[in-house]
Amino acid sequence: MKKVDLQQKVVTRNDEIAAYNRKRFDKLGAYVINMVSSPGSGKTSLIEATVEALKDEAKVFVITGDLMTDNDAKRVGRHGVEVAQVTTGDACHLDANMIAEKLAAWKSQRCDLLFIENVGNLVCPASFDLGEDIKVLLISVTEGDDKPLKYPPMVRASSALVISKTDLLPYIDSNPQVIESNARRIRPDMEVFKVSCKTGEGIDRWIDWLRSQLEMKRQIQNKS
Amino acid sequence: MKKVDLQQKVVTRNDEIAAYNRKRFDKLGAYVINMVSSPGSGKTSLIEATVEALKDEAKVFVITGDLMTDNDAKRVGRHGVEVAQVTTGDACHLDANMIAEKLAAWKSQRCDLLFIENVGNLVCPASFDLGEDIKVLLISVTEGDDKPLKYPPMVRASSALVISKTDLLPYIDSNPQVIESNARRIRPDMEVFKVSCKTGEGIDRWIDWLRSQLEMKRQIQNKS
Repeated sequence: MKKVDLQQKVVTRNDEIAAYNRKRFDKLGAYVINMVSSPGSGKTSLIEATVEALKDEAKVFVITGDLMTDNDAKRVGRHGVEVAQVTTGDACHLDANMIAEKLAAWKSQRCDLLFIENVGNLVCPASFDLGEDIKVLLISVTEGDDKPLKYPPMVRASSALVISKTDLLPYIDSNPQVIESNARRIRPDMEVFKVSCKTGEGIDRWIDWLRSQLEMKRQIQNKS
Repeated sequence: MKKVDLQQKVVTRNDEIAAYNRKRFDKLGAYVINMVSSPGSGKTSLIEATVEALKDEAKVFVITGDLMTDNDAKRVGRHGVEVAQVTTGDACHLDANMIAEKLAAWKSQRCDLLFIENVGNLVCPASFDLGEDIKVLLISVTEGDDKPLKYPPMVRASSALVISKTDLLPYIDSNPQVIESNARRIRPDMEVFKVSCKTGEGIDRWIDWLRSQLEMKRQIQNKS
């Protein structure tokens, strides 16, 4: 019982800081995506493809999270956008305070789109709000079609699902329709995309949807 | 500080139960493998291939862990071995107590090899001893060659590394030698295997090594 109480306290404290982050994000004008997946599902590759597509029309920032190494930050940084690295040591997820610390160090007064690339983990990041607008979940076709059913809390927490590495479909036993329908059994209203960052297949639809999300956020902010 | 203390207490309590499990395993004569990986790296497929290869010469048991579904238990059960399922709900790893509960329900008095298939998570299971002889880590070639460097605690905790899905190498940018050398930078003494459960490549060497491990455990037990 005590354990549950303490865990609840940690999450409550996290939510307070996330609310603070959310206000800061709104002030910057940023639409914020918390990107979550298993290790190696292709979060960094999708962020790289997105940065390339949008960097001339939107100011994009990226925060990458990892237990160790700044490999992802270096990869994304090559595309000429601002990148900050959070190294968590042995922590299995990013928390709102890690993001708040990065925000405090920012000099920029404007940002249209902020990607937060979470630690590769299909369980723990589901419980920690970072102040984002939405969580986007990646599942690669190599991971097995039943993954949404095996990790329901993460599916429930995510507004969109990107089924990645579709270029490998000819070589494996996977049906992305099954991944999609399994995800919709947990969360029927999910936006679902099927992409290959290698061939570029499906990236256009993802980018168009992102543009519409950015526009929607802009309109909401202009009204308020 | 309080958080760290409580986490330490949880791990200490877990270690006490793990020591109890270890005694029970020794009594059963079981060599116990705690199998860890990202979601979808192929733990269940490797267990299925191993069960098929060894079931006529060894009594094999399997415990599968998942947040939700008993898909893996059903898959393994088809191979005619005893399987127990632990459904963790929202817990990101198996703990020693979950295994102790399954052990208490067992009627069998003998077991040569017990596989415990952990929750797919490359972070949290590293901290929880279940009473196993060794942890075996799977990394599939689709996950990216830098994974050992990004998740060092799990590499450090594992005695053997199985690089899986090598049949996909012609279609992706991956070099299993790099995965291996990255793992050895963290833990130089690792046993490393490269396998494809689809083509059977590398399975023989893995089975031979397992046989030698079982034999070693038998000799140690006969002496004591």
